[in-house]
Amino acid sequence: MFEKILIANRGEIALRVVRACRELGVRTVAVYSTADADSAAVRLADEAVRIGPPASRHSYLNTPAIIEAARQTGAEAIHPGYGFLSEDPDFAEVCEEAGLVFIGPGPEVVRGFGDKARARTLMAEAGLPLSPGSTEPVTSAAAARAVAEEIGYPVIIKSVAGGGGRGMAVVWSPSELVEAYARTQLAAQATFGDNRVYLESYLVNARHIEVQVLCDSYGNGVHLGTRDCSVQRRHQKLVEEGPATGLCARTLDAIADAAVRGALAVGYCGAGTFEFLVDEAENFRFIEANCRIQVEHPVTEMISGIDLVHEQLHIAAGIPLRMRQDEIRLRGTAVECRVNAEDPERGFAPAPGRLDRFQPPGGPFTRVDTHGYAGYLVGPYYDSLLAKVIVWAPERDLALDRMDRALYEFDIAGAGVRTTIPFLRRILDDAAFRKGRYSTALVERLMDATH
Amino acid sequence: MFEKILIANRGEIALRVVRACRELGVRTVAVYSTADADSAAVRLADEAVRIGPPASRHSYLNTPAIIEAARQTGAEAIHPGYGFLSEDPDFAEVCEEAGLVFIGPGPEVVRGFGDKARARTLMAEAGLPLSPGSTEPVTSAAAARAVAEEIGYPVIIKSVAGGGGRGMAVVWSPSELVEAYARTQLAAQATFGDNRVYLESYLVNARHIEVQVLCDSYGNGVHLGTRDCSVQRRHQKLVEEGPATGLCARTLDAIADAAVRGALAVGYCGAGTFEFLVDEAENFRFIEANCRIQVEHPVTEMISGIDLVHEQLHIAAGIPLRMRQDEIRLRGTAVECRVNAEDPERGFAPAPGRLDRFQPPGGPFTRVDTHGYAGYLVGPYYDSLLAKVIVWAPERDLALDRMDRALYEFDIAGAGVRTTIPFLRRILDDAAFRKGRYSTALVERLMDATH
Repeated sequence: MFEKILIANRGEIALRVVRACRELGVRTVAVYSTADADSAAVRLADEAVRIGPPASRHSYLNTPAIIEAARQTGAEAIHPGYGFLSEDPDFAEVCEEAGLVFIGPGPEVVRGFGDKARARTLMAEAGLPLSPGSTEPVTSAAAARAVAEEIGYPVIIKSVAGGGGRGMAVVWSPSELVEAYARTQLAAQATFGDNRVYLESYLVNARHIEVQVLCDSYGNGVHLGTRDCSVQRRHQKLVEEGPATGLCARTLDAIADAAVRGALAVGYCGAGTFEFLVDEAENFRFIEANCRIQVEHPVTEMISGIDLVHEQLHIAAGIPLRMRQDEIRLRGTAVECRVNAEDPERGFAPAPGRLDRFQPPGGPFTRVDTHGYAGYLVGPYYDSLLAKVIVWAPERDLALDRMDRALYEFDIAGAGVRTTIPFLRRILDDAAFRKGRYSTALVERLMDATH
Repeated sequence: MFEKILIANRGEIALRVVRACRELGVRTVAVYSTADADSAAVRLADEAVRIGPPASRHSYLNTPAIIEAARQTGAEAIHPGYGFLSEDPDFAEVCEEAGLVFIGPGPEVVRGFGDKARARTLMAEAGLPLSPGSTEPVTSAAAARAVAEEIGYPVIIKSVAGGGGRGMAVVWSPSELVEAYARTQLAAQATFGDNRVYLESYLVNARHIEVQVLCDSYGNGVHLGTRDCSVQRRHQKLVEEGPATGLCARTLDAIADAAVRGALAVGYCGAGTFEFLVDEAENFRFIEANCRIQVEHPVTEMISGIDLVHEQLHIAAGIPLRMRQDEIRLRGTAVECRVNAEDPERGFAPAPGRLDRFQPPGGPFTRVDTHGYAGYLVGPYYDSLLAKVIVWAPERDLALDRMDRALYEFDIAGAGVRTTIPFLRRILDDAAFRKGRYSTALVERLMDATH
């Protein structure tokens, strides 16, 4: 195992990794922007290095400063968390060149899945079903229209370099296509520095099901079951649960097996997530893979008892996978709700400010991963995630009741601060959601009901 | 299920019951002394009734005020928590007479186990092994000496009405007996209003093992495995873990079976704990039973996945036990540490004050049951328990590492406030404890090593 690693991230996930390292006796180096000098990760890490001003490009995306911090502190490896540099193949490569272990798959795999069109080709080669659409970037509006005519409307235009649900547009009819194509190209360029886009047919009432996999560097791979992440606003997840509910066990097994097959086909190494859409007839199709720890990984931890960050560290240290598929026992249901500093009544616009009160819930089978505290300033620089509330119960109904209890209890207040909590509680109260009969259309329906 | 219950307690356990009730859709009435007006239980309960000034006898032991509060609010049942009135058979009787359900066993059972000498007789009749000693109260120093001569030194003198480890004295030789007898009688009178004491032989290197049982009102009973509570200072538990470690599975099974047998023999109904001492040859003997939810119940919850307060409520509402013995699956290891406002360097003397900072740990498989918050005043009126930190892991070693991480992270500070955290971390670091080879002598050894 490593003696010391550097954590190239901030917020709750940086704290999450600090905790995992301390439990394994691995020393930690936190890097931070001046906006995060007082953060819990900085306070609890063994060492901390300031790497720049608040803007991400000068700090958490500042590769030279991060590599230099690792050199100065003698860290052997870098945990990239999620977002920021976690899925940047160049960063993984620079780590390698600097003699640092990048805690994640190798640069080629990151690059392969980072190009979402290329990922489709790779997974088609591995025998995974895909949505109808282009496996190459679409380079003109006319080409886009041709693909759309072939696969039929609605279609979704996605950024090749995308991720985290950003830079996508659903197109319902030919008349919208040219404008949407231009808009997603611009957004892709602005967000990812790469204007390429591709098309897929769009499923209206889809379930968004993902599979957590773990693979080591010796060709062993397992899955830790499924998560349902269909509850999204603007392709951003709000509520996740595991195992997925309301689908046949056979469907879920097939999806999980496909994920492991896809991972092993490309020599995947580390923790990863394979995402699928499932239609109403329970046909599933691969959409993308995420080469990092996922925001919603605690859902899987609570049903499997396995600490995914521990496993990431073991795998990166070259230790063979510590479990076989038939040793993994999933138990009960876990649910995660993302508490964001956003105003659901104003289209989930960021609603930052200083937290005067911040008292997360506690109690049985309730976990809160958060970097927040009373006095914390939710700034404009980073994403709006304030806390993840995760609960577990032997049965799904109780898990939902427990989540509602936890959210009721969560005391957050500050001038200007709004949170997703009231909206999350509406979701928990929705009859279709309660029955496990919901899709990616749920949030929109609830928002329409408000207006 | 009940529509509304009253919680006749305070602190973390009152909050614990509020949480359980909200999850089950049961409305709650918190009662509180003026010292607890700002407490989390009062804030989160549906209703709250002030029942008196801080001193327990005027508030949390004030039966008429509590019954009146239940009448006024229309509560159907009373959850007594632990301590205070939870094992007072008169209170259970008054509830019954007032038409209120006492959430716990019936008054006769509470009375039978409340008299520790009588409990020994009952359990001997049920075929449970006892420590050599008296099954009747010892009414003179001469009688005490005769018993001690017969069973051999060391002996322990216990209060018949005792509980929670209070009012006991270990006697190593005949010369100490008369004084110790007089002292424990006085202490018993002062603490419990009943000066009767009895004698047992004292095991020097005993394991304190207890069994969690659940029994319904239809004669069904199960156990949820064992907990080891050997880490005690002055017979007060500091660290608990489950399942018990370092003992044969056969011994633990036999103890668990004995507990269920004992419970069913007396018509036990509700959640209860049967306590045993185990000697180095793994002979076990019943010492007492606790007719209430135990402080350390979260240990069992984390290994069983079962919410014990939910089960208490179901049983009290007359619902048959919802599980059979062969459906109960225990998993991994859970550990609880009691964070008390005490100074381990001054013999665990209470060290109260106002908490300027209070930031409990979080993260995977980590639970904190606490009523504390930044600004909370730890007063002199009640016990010194500030928080229970409970962690779970698939393996004991990781559970201990996780606990150490959690305690490291726990940020508590305030003028005059000292906590047990540094001492708890020393226990976790102790080689014998790590190996699971420890006894009730552990804390004393560590304290001696300090001086």
